[in-house]
Amino acid sequence: MAGRKKAVVLLSGGLDSATAMAIARNEGFDVYAMSFRYGQRHAIELECAEQQAQASAEEFRVVEIDLRAFGGSALTADIDVPKHDGVEELTDEIPVTYVPARNTVFLSYALAWAEVLGANDIFIGVNALDYSGYPDCRPEFIAAYEKMANLATVAGVKGQSLKIHTPLINLTKGEIIQLGLDLGVDYAKTTSCYDPASDGRACGHCDSCLLRKKGFADAGCRDPRPYMEG
Amino acid sequence: MAGRKKAVVLLSGGLDSATAMAIARNEGFDVYAMSFRYGQRHAIELECAEQQAQASAEEFRVVEIDLRAFGGSALTADIDVPKHDGVEELTDEIPVTYVPARNTVFLSYALAWAEVLGANDIFIGVNALDYSGYPDCRPEFIAAYEKMANLATVAGVKGQSLKIHTPLINLTKGEIIQLGLDLGVDYAKTTSCYDPASDGRACGHCDSCLLRKKGFADAGCRDPRPYMEG
Repeated sequence: MAGRKKAVVLLSGGLDSATAMAIARNEGFDVYAMSFRYGQRHAIELECAEQQAQASAEEFRVVEIDLRAFGGSALTADIDVPKHDGVEELTDEIPVTYVPARNTVFLSYALAWAEVLGANDIFIGVNALDYSGYPDCRPEFIAAYEKMANLATVAGVKGQSLKIHTPLINLTKGEIIQLGLDLGVDYAKTTSCYDPASDGRACGHCDSCLLRKKGFADAGCRDPRPYMEG
Repeated sequence: MAGRKKAVVLLSGGLDSATAMAIARNEGFDVYAMSFRYGQRHAIELECAEQQAQASAEEFRVVEIDLRAFGGSALTADIDVPKHDGVEELTDEIPVTYVPARNTVFLSYALAWAEVLGANDIFIGVNALDYSGYPDCRPEFIAAYEKMANLATVAGVKGQSLKIHTPLINLTKGEIIQLGLDLGVDYAKTTSCYDPASDGRACGHCDSCLLRKKGFADAGCRDPRPYMEG
């Protein structure tokens, strides 16, 4: 087992996971980036993930998942994405954009690849502050997943400890962006919009656009990603 | 939420999961059966799973998983399946037929479907006695998975408790077969061989065939599945 430590990084094409990848590299890991094609209505997320991986990862794997087989969610089925005029309209309700058991499924693929690679580290850009409606973004979920993972694998049985890193979990969107800029993340290669135009421009009014805009405002810098309204 | 309770049952085509499905039905559940196509070298397993599901399940879903993307295992790559002359040659080594994080990935899909169905019960035919080499067949793994799953989902957040049933976990193969026969399982529609002939006959010498043969001998009954040697 020569060379640097390996980490599997879950990459969505969004700004959180791009920042998590930069943190992994900054901590000395060689990055093995993994993304998922799961019936998204837009391919722009995977294009962004691939651009980021080309710049920063040793390998990049896209796993095909047909989550549509399980039924509804605004990100994967024909339900309208909710639009708002401001971030104050967001509620504590669990969003309709929730994909069933998404992080559980994604982490399970990451675990399988980590086991094959001999990697003991997985990075995931979950955030408990800005997305409190998703149960599988909470610290207690991640802790329980890590405990399970250490009982699931041959490496775990042999006493190697697998760690799931969530470096963004308690940061605000503004803090995440500031940290990423310090580490050289190119946020032009990230997309956040749930309902982008065919050329990749963001709608500016979905939950995710509102949180992103507020984050760049709080970080005091310009969002390099184009919006429909200019 | 009218009607009977729903349970997702993981169905492999083998005799353990067929028995687990019969137990779920006997406990009053409507069965939603899920199988996986993951680069098996033989299609006979899925044929058996489908035959069982047609007889006993409300719905049957096959999820495509490309585990070959992660690399080697005798069940999914070009490594020879080990053959033995008797069950006494089996060791405590973790078998080369191990698929990385398999049950973690399978249970994650079952969890996603359970969430969409509004089901609080998942059945998996893992067995800790006959397959002690697989870390993800142990009771402590299942307990940790169940705890994680209850933190992962909207249902869990709302206080519904998800249970992972492992009715076979402490039974011998002979006891499993006896129980299944009492519940009317048709074991002719199950396959266990790691290396069957193209017509579905079992090799009779792989680890799995040896355990199956011993199980039917212990249960004192004939295995209805054909073997190459007749």
